[in-house]
Amino acid sequence: MSSENKVIQDRLSLLRKKMAEEGIDYYMMPTSDFHNSEYSADFFKVREYFCGFDGSNGTLVVSQDAAGMWTDGRYFIQAENQMKGTSVELFRMLEPGVPTISEFLIANMKEGQTLGFDGRVISTSIGEDLEKKLAGNKVSLKYDKDLAEDVWTDRPQLPCHDMYVLSDELCGMSFAQKLSLVRDKMNEYSTTLYLLSKLDDIMWLTNLRGNDVECNPVALSYAMITMDSFDLFVQKKEITDEVRTYCQNAGIGLKDYHSLISSIQDTNLKGDVLFDKRNTNYLTFKALSGKAKEAGVSLKNEKDPTEMLKACKNDTELKNVREVYLRDSAKLTEFIYWVKENVGKTKMTEYSAAMKLDSMRAELPGFIELSFPTISAYNANAAMAHYEATEDCCEEVKPEGMLLVDSGGTYMGGTTDVTRTIVVGKISDEIKRNYTATVVGMLRLANANFLEGCSGKNVDILARQALWDMGIDYKHGTGHGIGYILNVHEGPQNIRWRFTPGQNEALLLPGMIVSDEPGVYIEGSYGIRIENILEVVSGQTNEYGHFLHFAHLTYAPIDLEAIDPQYMEPRDIKALNDYHDMVYKKVSPLISDAKILNWLREATRRI
Amino acid sequence: MSSENKVIQDRLSLLRKKMAEEGIDYYMMPTSDFHNSEYSADFFKVREYFCGFDGSNGTLVVSQDAAGMWTDGRYFIQAENQMKGTSVELFRMLEPGVPTISEFLIANMKEGQTLGFDGRVISTSIGEDLEKKLAGNKVSLKYDKDLAEDVWTDRPQLPCHDMYVLSDELCGMSFAQKLSLVRDKMNEYSTTLYLLSKLDDIMWLTNLRGNDVECNPVALSYAMITMDSFDLFVQKKEITDEVRTYCQNAGIGLKDYHSLISSIQDTNLKGDVLFDKRNTNYLTFKALSGKAKEAGVSLKNEKDPTEMLKACKNDTELKNVREVYLRDSAKLTEFIYWVKENVGKTKMTEYSAAMKLDSMRAELPGFIELSFPTISAYNANAAMAHYEATEDCCEEVKPEGMLLVDSGGTYMGGTTDVTRTIVVGKISDEIKRNYTATVVGMLRLANANFLEGCSGKNVDILARQALWDMGIDYKHGTGHGIGYILNVHEGPQNIRWRFTPGQNEALLLPGMIVSDEPGVYIEGSYGIRIENILEVVSGQTNEYGHFLHFAHLTYAPIDLEAIDPQYMEPRDIKALNDYHDMVYKKVSPLISDAKILNWLREATRRI
Repeated sequence: MSSENKVIQDRLSLLRKKMAEEGIDYYMMPTSDFHNSEYSADFFKVREYFCGFDGSNGTLVVSQDAAGMWTDGRYFIQAENQMKGTSVELFRMLEPGVPTISEFLIANMKEGQTLGFDGRVISTSIGEDLEKKLAGNKVSLKYDKDLAEDVWTDRPQLPCHDMYVLSDELCGMSFAQKLSLVRDKMNEYSTTLYLLSKLDDIMWLTNLRGNDVECNPVALSYAMITMDSFDLFVQKKEITDEVRTYCQNAGIGLKDYHSLISSIQDTNLKGDVLFDKRNTNYLTFKALSGKAKEAGVSLKNEKDPTEMLKACKNDTELKNVREVYLRDSAKLTEFIYWVKENVGKTKMTEYSAAMKLDSMRAELPGFIELSFPTISAYNANAAMAHYEATEDCCEEVKPEGMLLVDSGGTYMGGTTDVTRTIVVGKISDEIKRNYTATVVGMLRLANANFLEGCSGKNVDILARQALWDMGIDYKHGTGHGIGYILNVHEGPQNIRWRFTPGQNEALLLPGMIVSDEPGVYIEGSYGIRIENILEVVSGQTNEYGHFLHFAHLTYAPIDLEAIDPQYMEPRDIKALNDYHDMVYKKVSPLISDAKILNWLREATRRI
Repeated sequence: MSSENKVIQDRLSLLRKKMAEEGIDYYMMPTSDFHNSEYSADFFKVREYFCGFDGSNGTLVVSQDAAGMWTDGRYFIQAENQMKGTSVELFRMLEPGVPTISEFLIANMKEGQTLGFDGRVISTSIGEDLEKKLAGNKVSLKYDKDLAEDVWTDRPQLPCHDMYVLSDELCGMSFAQKLSLVRDKMNEYSTTLYLLSKLDDIMWLTNLRGNDVECNPVALSYAMITMDSFDLFVQKKEITDEVRTYCQNAGIGLKDYHSLISSIQDTNLKGDVLFDKRNTNYLTFKALSGKAKEAGVSLKNEKDPTEMLKACKNDTELKNVREVYLRDSAKLTEFIYWVKENVGKTKMTEYSAAMKLDSMRAELPGFIELSFPTISAYNANAAMAHYEATEDCCEEVKPEGMLLVDSGGTYMGGTTDVTRTIVVGKISDEIKRNYTATVVGMLRLANANFLEGCSGKNVDILARQALWDMGIDYKHGTGHGIGYILNVHEGPQNIRWRFTPGQNEALLLPGMIVSDEPGVYIEGSYGIRIENILEVVSGQTNEYGHFLHFAHLTYAPIDLEAIDPQYMEPRDIKALNDYHDMVYKKVSPLISDAKILNWLREATRRI
C-alpha cells in the first residue's frame, strides 16, 4: 500500500489551478533568493513547499499532468524519502540517461506553450540559456509572476530586519570615497548608469549592514548608480532613523526594494549601462535590456568593479581584522582546552560542543553573529562534506579519535573562519601520518613566496603536495576569499588546482584575505581539516618583479598529539615551531586562566 | 658627414618601382617562412635584404616616400647600426609614443590605397587583424604577390632537400593508423576536408622527414586530407624514389608544393573544412575561406588534432627516446669531463667547446643533425638570453667561473635537449647558493606527483620556489614539449607560471615529453641553467583520481662543485643522490674510458 502525501498533492493542485489561470504550462522553482545568496531564507523555500524535499540544491518543474524535481548525488536518497507519495518524480542529475531540465523542457513543451518562473530567483545565464534553447520550440517565457504568492497562504515573510551603519573609522573609507572609485570604473567602461545587485558589494560600498540572510550581515537591496545620484533599494521597514539620517547626509536616495523594476522602466538612460551578468537576476536583466533597447544604448556586462575594490582590504580593515582574529583565535584555543579537559568526563555531543563554542564566541566584544553554522563532526562524520549535527541527531564525542570543528564569527572588526581537528583520544599511525601531511601542506602554502601575477592555481600544489606524494587528495578547493564584517565566502580570489568553466581564476593581490584549508577525508572512518586564514602581503620589488607572501591571521594551536615529525622535512618542523611560537606569543596575553595558559605553553611546545 | 648606404637605397628604389607597377602603396615584410617555423631560411630574409637588419625579429614597411622597420628591445642598437644610411626609420616596439605597425598604417594610409604583402609569410591572425583595422580607411589588401621575387636577383633558393622515410617500426605507428585517428577527429568536428599546414605535424602524420628548416627535420609541405584521399604538397625535387614508392604504397597523393592554392580552388567542397588558424598562413586562409563561401560550407577553426596525437608519445617512441637520451647523456658526460680536463691547459673558447660537443654528438649512431644551434656561454655571457658565440666573436674559457652549455641532437630514435652549467674554476658562495637552488628546483619539479587535470601552471612553482624564496626569478618558461625525431620545441604542453593571451595552457598527459630548466641569470656576471628532459608517467588511479609523475630521460651529472648542501632539505639531498646513483648506473655502461669512468664515479658521489 503506497502512502499518499495529500498535503503536497493538494498544494500542487492549487498551483496547477493558478498556472491555468495565468496561462502557464510549465512552472519552474529553483533554490535561490533574488540575489543568489549562499543561504536562502524560508520565504524562498517554494520548491520545498511544493514537493517536500528540503536539501540545499533542487529545482522543481510542474506541468498540469506531471511534476519533476532535479537534484544532485548528495541528495538522491533524501529526496526519494521526502517526496514519497507526492507524485513528484525524482530526476537524478548527471546520472546516465537522465535529461537536464532544459533537455526535459525541449522534449516536452509544445509550440505556443508557456514556461513560467519567478525571474527574480533565476540567474541571467540560466534565463538566457532557456530562452535560447526553447526558441526552437516557439515556447514563451513568463517570468514576472511568483505563483507561490497566492497559493502558499502561510508563507513566511520576506526577511526584513533593521539595517545599521558602520562608522567610516571602522571601514577605513567613507561611502563617498568608495563611490568615487566606482564612478571611475563606470567612466572606464564608458557607462553612465550602473546597476549593482550583489548584496555584500552593496553593503561594502555604502558602509551599511543588514540581517536578511543567515550568517551574512547584509540587507536585501539593489543599488542604481549614476554620475550624480545613488539610489538604494531596500525594504522601507529596514530603515532606522540612524540609517535614514546617514543616507540623507551621504546623498543616498532611499527607494523601496520592490520598486526596482518600475524605477528601471522610469529611468532616462543617457548612455550605456554597466552590470554584471553573474550577479543580476533574469527579471532585472530583462528590464534593463528592454530599457536599453528602447533608449538605443548598450548593456555592458563586466565584473562588478566593487568586487575587486572590496577584495583588497584597506589598512584600517587589515588592522581591525588582525585584532579580531587574535581574539577569535584565543577563544578557539580556550574551546580546544575545554574539549580536551571535558571529553569522557562530562557528556559531550557534536552539537553540545558546537553550542559551547558558539556561546563562547558570543561573549567576544563586537560579536554580531556566526559567520556560518558551526560544523562539529566527530570521527567518521568528519569525512562527510555536508555533515550537519543537530540537537536531535548527533554523535556523542567519546575519548577516542578526533573532533573536527570548522567555525567562525562576524564581529565589529572582521569576519573569521577557522578549522581545527582536535585529538580527543587514541588515534592510529595512519591518522598521524595524514594529519601531519595536512599540517605540512597548510604551512607550506602559508610560507610561500610568489611573484605578483600568480593566482591561487599557481600556489595550490604547495598545500596538496605532501598528500599527493602519498596518493591522497581532498576534493575541495584549498582556499576562498573572506569578507570584512561581511560574508565568509567572497571573490574573486580563491586557491584551487583547477577551475571549472565560469570559475574565476583571479590574481592574488596585497590586502586580499584567503583561507588555507587542506584536509584528508576517509569515508566511514575519519576526517581531518586544518584551516588558517592568511592575508596577502606585499614583499620586495626588484628586477624580477613584485614579490608577495602570506601572513597568518589565525593563531590557534595545531594538535601536536597528531603530529609525527618523521613525515616532516626540517623546514616543515621549523615552520610548525615558528608558528607555535607566534601562537603562544600572540594569544597568551588574551588568556587569563592559568590552567589554560599552562596547557597552551605545552600545546605550542617546539618539537 | 653621414655615410649613405647606397646598396640598400638602390634595392629600395627597385622595390618601389615594382610597387608602383603593382599598384601597391605600402609593402610589408615580416620575419617568417610560409609555416611560421622557428628558423627562417635565407630565401625568406627579404626584410634583411631591403634594410640590412638581420635580427631574429623585425618587420619592414615601405611606401614610395618612406620606410620603417619595427623590432623589439633586444635589437634597438643592432638595428640602428645596421640600418645606418639606408633611410629606413627604426620603430622601437613597446617604447612610449611609438605606434604599432597597424597604428602607423591607420594613421598614414588613405582611402583607396593598397597595402601589399606576401600572404604566405603573414599569419591568419595578423592578416585578419589588419583587414579589420584598415577597413575604416577603405584600404585594399594585396597579398598574393612576393615583390622580392623580381627585385632580389641573387636571392638564395627556397630550401629544397631530399625527404626520407622513417620505418613504421621506428615510429611505432603506421601512417594509415595515424590517418585513421585524424579522420576520427575530422568526423568529430563534422568536417569533410582538413588542411594541415604545420610542418612537424605533417612529418609526424606521414612518417616522412625532410631537411628544409635549420635544425628541424621537416620538409616544406602542406597536407590536404579528405575521408578518402590524402594529398601531400611538397617540392617535386625533394621526392626520392624511396619516398615516391612509400607514398604510392601508403595512398599518399604527391602534389607540387606551389600548387596548394590552385588545388584549394579546384577542390569540390562537400562539407565543412577543418583548419587551425594558428598554423595557417593568410594566403591559404583566404583561399580556403573564399572557396568555402562559394560552396556554402563553413571553416572550422580548431586546434590541429595532430598536435595532441603527436604530443603523447607511443610506447615505441618512448622506448627509443629513452635509449637515445642515455647515449646523448653519456656523450655529454664525456664532454663535461673533456672541458674540466682541458680548461686552462689547451686553448678553449666558447665556440671551440661547442664545436667539440657537436662533433662528439655527430659520432653517435643515428645522428641526423643538431636539434638547435649549441649554446656555449661563459660567465657573464651566460646571463644573456640570446647569446650566440661565433668563431670570430667568442670568449675564451679560462679556469675560473662556469661554462653554460645548452645543446641537443636529433637522432634516428629521438630528439634531445639538455643544459649543464659546468664549473671550470673558482666560483663564489653566492653562485653556489643560486646553483644549488636551481638544482633543487629542477629536482623538485622532476619528483612531483600530481593528479591528471594539472597543467604546467600547477607544477611550475616547484621549480621556482627555492629561487622565489630568495627573491630571484628566471624570466623564461620552465619547460617546453619536445618532438620525436622532430622539432626540439613542440606543443601543446609547457610548464610556465603564467600564460599570455594566446598561449595554450595544456594538460600534462602520460607520454608527453617536457623540459625542466630553471636558471639564474645575473647580468654582467654569470648565468646558471640546469635542464633535464622528463617524460610524463602514469601512476596509480584511486578514488581521488589518476595520479601522474615524471621520469628523467636525461642522465648527466650535476656539477657537485657548485652544490652547497646547506641550502638543501634532506629530501633535496636524497633527490640529488638518487639521481646521481641512476646517472652512474645508466651511463657508466656506455662509457669505455676508465679515466672518465673514475671521474664519473666521483662526480656522481653521494653527498
